[in-house]
Order: sequence, then C-alpha cells, then structure tokens
Amino acid sequence: MKKVAVVLCGSGYRDGSEIREAVATLWALSQEQAKVQCFAPDAAQTDVVNCLTGETAASEKRNMLVESARIARGDVKPLTELNTADFDALIIPGGFGAAKNLCNFASKGSQGTVRPELANVILEFFEKKKPIGAICIAPAIVALALRDKHLSLTVGENGETAQEIEKCGQSHKATKVTDCYVDSQNKVVTTGAYMFGNAALHDVFSGIQKCVQGVLKLT
Amino acid sequence: MKKVAVVLCGSGYRDGSEIREAVATLWALSQEQAKVQCFAPDAAQTDVVNCLTGETAASEKRNMLVESARIARGDVKPLTELNTADFDALIIPGGFGAAKNLCNFASKGSQGTVRPELANVILEFFEKKKPIGAICIAPAIVALALRDKHLSLTVGENGETAQEIEKCGQSHKATKVTDCYVDSQNKVVTTGAYMFGNAALHDVFSGIQKCVQGVLKLT
Repeated sequence: MKKVAVVLCGSGYRDGSEIREAVATLWALSQEQAKVQCFAPDAAQTDVVNCLTGETAASEKRNMLVESARIARGDVKPLTELNTADFDALIIPGGFGAAKNLCNFASKGSQGTVRPELANVILEFFEKKKPIGAICIAPAIVALALRDKHLSLTVGENGETAQEIEKCGQSHKATKVTDCYVDSQNKVVTTGAYMFGNAALHDVFSGIQKCVQGVLKLT
Repeated sequence: MKKVAVVLCGSGYRDGSEIREAVATLWALSQEQAKVQCFAPDAAQTDVVNCLTGETAASEKRNMLVESARIARGDVKPLTELNTADFDALIIPGGFGAAKNLCNFASKGSQGTVRPELANVILEFFEKKKPIGAICIAPAIVALALRDKHLSLTVGENGETAQEIEKCGQSHKATKVTDCYVDSQNKVVTTGAYMFGNAALHDVFSGIQKCVQGVLKLT
C-alpha cells in the first residue's frame, strides 16, 4: 500500500487550502487504495478572509492545523511531524492559503520563500526521488523550494503566475484543467485545477485524479 | 438543464455541513450538468467546534452563510431567498451541523423541529412533487419536516438514529454506504455517507453520486 502525505494549510479557498481540491485529492487517493496522512502547520493562518464578501476579518485568528481538521475529519498532524522516510509521495493541494500560508509567493512571486519545515520536506522528497504532486497554485511552492532545478510544471494557462514560476528557474507547460503535467525525470506532477477559476467541478476532479494517479505511478 | 438547490449550514463535519459530502454532492451535480445554487441560513451556527480536539470553542461565533461560502466558493445565498418555483430539486448534505443548525434532531431526536424557513421549503418541494435528496444525517431533517408522511428513508444501518426517524412516522431502510434508497412515490432519495464513520471516501462518493442521480431522475 502506497503511503502519501497530503499537506493542508486551513480550510477555504481564500485563506487556506481549496476545499474542493483537497477533497478531490483525498477521493482520488482513496480510489487508488493509498494510505493517506494529512499534515498542516500548527500556526496561525496569514489571514482570515470572509469567503462570502472577500473581506479580510482583521480581528480574527485561525490556526491552520485546527482548520485543516475540518477537511481531514480530525486526522491531521503538525507538519513538523512529517518524516519523509515514512512516505512514498507528497501531494499539496492549492487554494490561496498555499500561496500565503505555505510560502509567500502571493506577495513576493519568484522572490518568495517557502515555510522552512515544508521547504525541507520538499527537498527531501526530491533528493530521495520520491514523487511530489502539486495542484492549482501549489506548484509555485515547489518552484520556490526547488529553485533552479529545471522542473517542468503547470499552473494551467500561461500568464503572470507561470512567468514568476519560470523566473525560479523552472519551465512552465500550459496544460488543460482536465489534464496534469508529468515531469518524469524530476518526479513532479502538477495540474491547474481552480487556477481555471470558472472550471466545472468535475473537470477539476478529472485533472486532480490524473495528477494523483501520475504521482502514484512514479513511486 | 436541471436546477438544483443545495442547502448548506457551515463548513465542517462537527459544527456545519460535512465538507466531503457537500463537495461530493456538487461534483455529482456537475457531472450531470445540473445548474446548482447553494443556500445557507444567514445566522450563527449553534456552536463552533474545534475539529482537531472535538472541543467546543465557547467564545467563538461563526455565521452559517459565511462559512458555507468556503465550500461554495462564494456562491451561496441566504436560505430565505430560496424560491421553490425556481428549482427542480433540493439536496441537503449531512454533517453534525445538519442535525444542530438546520434542525434540533441532535438534542431532541424525533421530538425535534426544523428551522422554519427550511421546513417550509421541504414541504413545498414535497407538495409540488419535486424530488428531495438527503445525505448522512440530513434524512432526519426530512423526517421531521414531513412528519407522518410515511416516507422510506435511510441513514445507513439500523440503530438509534433510524429508530428516532421511525418515531417520526417514517420507515427506515438499511442501505450500504455505496448505495442510496429511492422512495419513488414520495420522491425522497437518501444515502448513509459518513453515518458510516469509517467508510472509504470513494465509497461515500459512490453513494452520494447514486443519490444525486436518483434525485435528478425523479425530476
């Protein structure tokens, strides 16, 4: 049975993990009979955003580990407890939180950095030749953590986000929402998901399913 | 194109809508090319529960409409705006919130009542012979709102919850997690989902997919 670590960072597309992408990831892993453990930083989200109005709730604090437990049905561990030796693969769903909480790509673009405990995890998976899957904006985290490793990645269509990723020394590959891009050499598999903001949910699921299957095939 | 209203009540299995069930519902509806509008009460959740520890956060308040927007990606309207004439079907995902926020089945069982605006909506769909789907614990809401209508419903296995539903003048039909129960005469379709607490996620999805397809078939 393949063991997969899934990294979350809250619960909601504007300030945490994109809920639908996270659930699609867990669904596809369940279909493939993988053994899953969710992880999240035990730290405050960068912000709390009212997902109805888009306004930041300035006075509110939420913890990523606690909020991720809403998606993980309680079964989520602190990211500091992720021992790469225990897992065959790593998958990171998207959501604005991925670009704000797990790294600062949202504000710094290609000049950004990754939360240290996650940067280490990504580097270890890469060096051990264990596959990494990243969904939506999460490929930007991988691009930052593995700067100048000449990865081939997708965040969907070409555009500003893709350009920032290329400035990290990676190559962007425009890919449809229903597909994923497999960089077999570097064992990095990515899919655009809700980077296509108006995509049909079942199309997002198809792309994520292919991403998950691509990751498992590389283990 | 079939138009379906989905009723949410927050975002999280312990105090709102079960996230995975809600996403599975939206995914299955997307697959079937249905036009979906999410609704939720614009009111405070009954409580806020830390989904990591299970503890109630006594000082915290969250609004159902605002939290549901995390699942609905912002596209959710107040439940009071649900005009049954505009929709072909109604679907209610589960989660503890369904039994605490949308009705008080969690504390009152068969003696409970349904939030009035939802009780009216359910009665109107029923009287207009438009199908109603209910997932996990949400069949209990339908059982309360349509007391003594002799519905046939499932909340998965027989047991205490099923007994309380039968005390409402309904009949409980034990049904596997991967299946749904179709009461064709009353146009009510139900599936157990995470009432099977240890179910595999892809099995929960299968049951919900059948429930959604069953609902659409009855429109």
